[in-house]
Amino acid sequence: MTQAKLTRIAVDVMGGDFAPAETVTGAVLAARKGGVQLALVGDPARVNDELAKHDAKGLPIMVVPSEGIVQEGEPPALALRQKPKASIIVATGVVKQGMADAVVSMGSTGAAMAAAAVIMGVIEGIERPCLGGPVVGFSPKMIIVDVGTSVDCRPHQLASFAVTGDVFARRFWGIERPRVAMLSVGAEAGKGNKAVKEATELIKKTGVHFIGNVEGNDLPYGKADVVVCDGFVGNVVMKLTEGLGTTISDLLKERLSGKLDAAGLDEIVEEVYNRTNTVESYGGGPILGVNGVSIVGHGRAKADAIARAIGTAKHCVDTNLIPELNQRLSAVSKVTMAAPTPEKVEKK
Amino acid sequence: MTQAKLTRIAVDVMGGDFAPAETVTGAVLAARKGGVQLALVGDPARVNDELAKHDAKGLPIMVVPSEGIVQEGEPPALALRQKPKASIIVATGVVKQGMADAVVSMGSTGAAMAAAAVIMGVIEGIERPCLGGPVVGFSPKMIIVDVGTSVDCRPHQLASFAVTGDVFARRFWGIERPRVAMLSVGAEAGKGNKAVKEATELIKKTGVHFIGNVEGNDLPYGKADVVVCDGFVGNVVMKLTEGLGTTISDLLKERLSGKLDAAGLDEIVEEVYNRTNTVESYGGGPILGVNGVSIVGHGRAKADAIARAIGTAKHCVDTNLIPELNQRLSAVSKVTMAAPTPEKVEKK
Repeated sequence: MTQAKLTRIAVDVMGGDFAPAETVTGAVLAARKGGVQLALVGDPARVNDELAKHDAKGLPIMVVPSEGIVQEGEPPALALRQKPKASIIVATGVVKQGMADAVVSMGSTGAAMAAAAVIMGVIEGIERPCLGGPVVGFSPKMIIVDVGTSVDCRPHQLASFAVTGDVFARRFWGIERPRVAMLSVGAEAGKGNKAVKEATELIKKTGVHFIGNVEGNDLPYGKADVVVCDGFVGNVVMKLTEGLGTTISDLLKERLSGKLDAAGLDEIVEEVYNRTNTVESYGGGPILGVNGVSIVGHGRAKADAIARAIGTAKHCVDTNLIPELNQRLSAVSKVTMAAPTPEKVEKK
Repeated sequence: MTQAKLTRIAVDVMGGDFAPAETVTGAVLAARKGGVQLALVGDPARVNDELAKHDAKGLPIMVVPSEGIVQEGEPPALALRQKPKASIIVATGVVKQGMADAVVSMGSTGAAMAAAAVIMGVIEGIERPCLGGPVVGFSPKMIIVDVGTSVDCRPHQLASFAVTGDVFARRFWGIERPRVAMLSVGAEAGKGNKAVKEATELIKKTGVHFIGNVEGNDLPYGKADVVVCDGFVGNVVMKLTEGLGTTISDLLKERLSGKLDAAGLDEIVEEVYNRTNTVESYGGGPILGVNGVSIVGHGRAKADAIARAIGTAKHCVDTNLIPELNQRLSAVSKVTMAAPTPEKVEKK
C-alpha cells in the first residue's frame, strides 16, 4: 500500500489561552483530516491526559516532552537562554533538527519569533522577520505586512514587506500577479509620510506589480492583494478591525435579540465576528523571513482555529513558500538597500 | 423685547459634494433651531434659488457673495493666492473681519485648513494646526488627535495633541478630568515606536491626566477620552472605521433582508453606519490650533449633518474653546519643545 508523504508538523500544545485542552483537540482534528504527522510538544502527562479524551488511536500523533512555557510578555531573548526546554523552544528545535517540516504555536508571539529567528535563523539580507496575514477578513486573500514586528520601519524594510507579500500571495493563494499597494492617507501618488514616499520609489525597483496607494477605507474591499505598512500601523489596523467587529457583533446581539430567530441571530453575529477577528478564527500566519515554517496564532484560538493553523503550516510547506521567499528577499535586498535614499543623498 | 445674543456663523455653502442644495437646507435647519445668525457665503443667484425653496422668511440668514470654489485635491496654498474670492476664503475672511464668530465648510479640508492658518493665523508655539474628533462613533465622546494633518510627527507635536484633546474634552464635552492615552501596539508602558516612547515622556510633563497606552481594539470601548496618535495612524483609523462600518452595513442589508421587517432592517443598518461613519453623520470638527473657530466637515454630509456642524461651531464659540486651547498650547510648547529628546542628548 502506498501512502502520500505526510507533512510533519511540531505543535506547541502548551501555548495559548486554552492550552493544552484546545490545542490537543485541534491537533486531533487536523490529524483526522489527514495529510499531516504531528509531534505534540508539551508536558507529557498533561498532553496524554488530553489525548486520552479523544479517539486518537491510529492517528499519526506522537508526543515530544518539554518543560515549562514562555509566558506572554516575558522577554523572549531572556527566556530563550533561561528556559531551553520550554515548549516553543523545543518545538522550533524539532524543525531545526529536521524531524519536522514546520512548527505551530498559539503562545507568545514574541517567543515564537525569537525562537524562529535564533534557532532557524533569519534569512540573509533583511533586518528582522515580519508577520502578515489577511487580518481584515472581508478581504480574505489580502495580506497586510507587517502587523506588529517592526514598529519603526526604514524604507527598505517596507520594500521587503512588498516582496514578502508578493511571494506569499503567489505561492500560498496562487494569485498569478498580485496587486501590491502601499497603505497611506490618500489615494494619489505622493500622499503619505516620509517613509511611505521613499519606500514607494524602492518598491518600484523590486519587480512586484505595484498599483499605488490604498487608504484605510479600501481595506475591506480587497482593492489590493498585498498591502504594505509599517508594523505600528498594521498592528493598529489588525486590532481596530478586531475591536470594531466585536463591538458590532455585540450590538447586533443586543438590538436584534427577539427580532430574529436564535439561529439567524447566531449566524449573522458569527459572520461579522469571524470576518473581523480573523486571526482568532483563521488560526494564524507564518513568520516571514526565517529559514523555516513557523506559524503563530491567536492566544484565544479554539480547536477549529488550531486545526486550521496546522493546515496553514502544511500549505506553507507544500507550496514551497519559504525557499522562494528567502531567495527573493535576499536578491531584492541588494537592490533596495543599495539604493540611495534622500537622506543618504543629502549627506553627500 | 430682549433677545439672547446669537452666535454668528459664516457657512461656505458652495463646499461639499451636495452643495449648495444640502448646505443651504442644512443652514435653514440650523437657523430654525435657533441661537445662530448665519452668513451664507456663495454664488448669490444659486444660494437665493436654494433659499427660495424653503420657508426662510424671518430667519436670521444673510447671503455674502463669493466667486468660485477651491476643489478637493487642488493645492491649497496656490488656490489661496489665485482664488481670493473663493467661498472658503471669503467665509474665513468674514470671521477674521469680526463679522462672524466661526466658519463652517464641507469643502476641501486642505483648503479650509490653509485658509484658517493663513487668514486667522496659527497660534504661537505649535508647528501646524491639527484635526481631531470622535471618529470612532462607538466612543462618541472620545477625541482622536490627529486624524490626518501631520503625518510625520515629532514627539513634541504628539504632546501638543494631548493638550489639544484635553482642552477639547473639558470645554466641548464638559469632561472634568479627561483621561488622555497614547495609541500604541501594546498596553504596557514602553510598547511603541520611537516617537511614541519619546512623546510619552513629554506628555507626562504637560499636566494632563495621562493613563498610558491604548490599542486599536480599545478604541470602540472608550477606554480614554483623548487618544493621541500621529496623523498617518489617525487617518488610517478614521478611514478604516468608515470602511468597515460601510461593509458591515451592506452585509447586514444583504443577509437580513427578508428576515427583518424593513423598518427594523433600516434601523440597525443605519445605526452601524452612523456609529462608524461619524464625520459624515456628525457633521464635522474644529481645526485646532488656529486663532478662530473653523469647522471642517465631510464632503458627503447631508443637510442634517450640516446643521449639526453649525451646532458644533456654535458650541465651540459658546464654550470658549479656542482661547483656552491657544493659551494652553502656547504655555505647554515652552515645556515640551525645550525638553531634551533622547536624540538631542545623544548629540551632546
